[in-house]
Amino acid sequence: MLRYHLGLVDEYDRPSNTFGGKAFRTGLCVLACEAAGGKPAAANSAAAAIELVHNFSLIHDDIQDQDEERRHRPTVWKIWGAAKAINAGNALRMIADQELMKLTEKGFSKEISLKASRLLANRSLQMIQGQYLDISFEERLNVSSREYKKMIAHKTGALISCAMELGAITASSKRNLSSLLGKVGWYFGYMFQLKDDVLGVWGDESITGKAQGSDIQRKKKTYPILYALRNAPVKQKTTLHKIFRKQSLSDEDVSYTMCVLEDMKIREKTAALVQEMSTEAMRLIAGAPIPPKTMNEFSDIVNYLLEREK
Amino acid sequence: MLRYHLGLVDEYDRPSNTFGGKAFRTGLCVLACEAAGGKPAAANSAAAAIELVHNFSLIHDDIQDQDEERRHRPTVWKIWGAAKAINAGNALRMIADQELMKLTEKGFSKEISLKASRLLANRSLQMIQGQYLDISFEERLNVSSREYKKMIAHKTGALISCAMELGAITASSKRNLSSLLGKVGWYFGYMFQLKDDVLGVWGDESITGKAQGSDIQRKKKTYPILYALRNAPVKQKTTLHKIFRKQSLSDEDVSYTMCVLEDMKIREKTAALVQEMSTEAMRLIAGAPIPPKTMNEFSDIVNYLLEREK
Repeated sequence: MLRYHLGLVDEYDRPSNTFGGKAFRTGLCVLACEAAGGKPAAANSAAAAIELVHNFSLIHDDIQDQDEERRHRPTVWKIWGAAKAINAGNALRMIADQELMKLTEKGFSKEISLKASRLLANRSLQMIQGQYLDISFEERLNVSSREYKKMIAHKTGALISCAMELGAITASSKRNLSSLLGKVGWYFGYMFQLKDDVLGVWGDESITGKAQGSDIQRKKKTYPILYALRNAPVKQKTTLHKIFRKQSLSDEDVSYTMCVLEDMKIREKTAALVQEMSTEAMRLIAGAPIPPKTMNEFSDIVNYLLEREK
Repeated sequence: MLRYHLGLVDEYDRPSNTFGGKAFRTGLCVLACEAAGGKPAAANSAAAAIELVHNFSLIHDDIQDQDEERRHRPTVWKIWGAAKAINAGNALRMIADQELMKLTEKGFSKEISLKASRLLANRSLQMIQGQYLDISFEERLNVSSREYKKMIAHKTGALISCAMELGAITASSKRNLSSLLGKVGWYFGYMFQLKDDVLGVWGDESITGKAQGSDIQRKKKTYPILYALRNAPVKQKTTLHKIFRKQSLSDEDVSYTMCVLEDMKIREKTAALVQEMSTEAMRLIAGAPIPPKTMNEFSDIVNYLLEREK
């Protein structure tokens, strides 16, 4: 199940070379290590642990959201049932801890090893708290932007920030960049999630694999949708609330909602917010003693986060 | 949800004083610390962490087994739904790690702190592997005694053994009893689970709260039932296999199975196995440099494990 979820084998355990995810957090972890003056390989255990924690959360998320597909394949619970999938997620989470605990064997100090494990535990808990907020939003129509940002900071930002902070810690250099890079990670988290929200409503089906408006169809409480539910003109607001209280939405409901979002220019507003955050992130990066090559890579990542279409 | 599960509040978060479990593992952890020459309070963080990991596993188990009641109250998933319950379990698991990581703040060496965290991660993974085996047995009728023992060693023994080993580690004494007490813990795990199996078939309803034969009714693959499925005389075996392939069992099915178990003296055989293990455990304890008072307490525990009726 674990190998399947990670894209290494098919459901009959035959080797396969399926796309196992973007490895975005893994990449950030390694890059943060280099930024702080470490060799990329020093971040291996931390990067692997982060990737495993992320995948633990995906396996459980898919059960919680009843999602039947991930990365164009059936989800773990869809094939093996929820009971085994819960268990598979738990196993991945523990293997992540075991991986991170290899740091001392690899020559890192006990100090660094403890710091790393403590950080991963704290941020994992925040991620779980974010997941709780996300689930609890399902029953609400009046979630404020502030509440929403808190949710995505926890659910998405905590682990991305952790990836960068851990990477910097494993650099073991005097250049103490871990808290600064951790801060950059929080911005990346916001950007990542808000861009996801944009793609969930306006993404190109031929690229994302999801129909336009799919987040509306699924009544997901993402930033653009919550913004409309709170700030639409009275008439539209009443209709939107009526729509989002329905058991399931018709095509007309979806296109009506799309129109309201369009009229309110919410796509542009969300993009502007992502842009703002990218400026903040780049300001922090530019002010840090980071090698030019790594600096450029961070700048590429910022551009990727602004422009990605899937 | 977490407070509710632990018996501290009712489902509306009002203080309550519900039975939150036997705290068996917690007690063993503290006792092992004393046995190894430590003050009981030294084991606090370890004991709390163990109790939280145990409760994490119960919250998830209840979802996996679709159990609607635990400790005479509705289970977490029954009240809040599976999605939130998965999350609540995950949160407890992380809080357990955070608790154990307080060891250095409490004056323990980094060495001990790392050792403790590593042990908890390894044993948690074993517990999860045991849970996997248990779930996979549901689809099988031909589980051997050896496979069954492997399953309960992982599912139940790993954490009980971990409790004792952690307790001994936190004693921080020169008397290195952690591996010996860990070994005793494995025996306690077997005894605990096998006794559970006996109570699941022959327990007194007025004491256990479960009807006699309830494990048969639920087609649980416990030791007595698996033993009958493999070793019953041909005719009874055929009937038993037919019964255990049914979707749900009638009262006649349950009483027929009870009769076969009776005829085969499986209750006595299981009791003899538990007795054997208690002898092994006591032999180990008696040979160790443990203070007489603690020695007596261990002996009380062995008797409790042999004689408990709920």
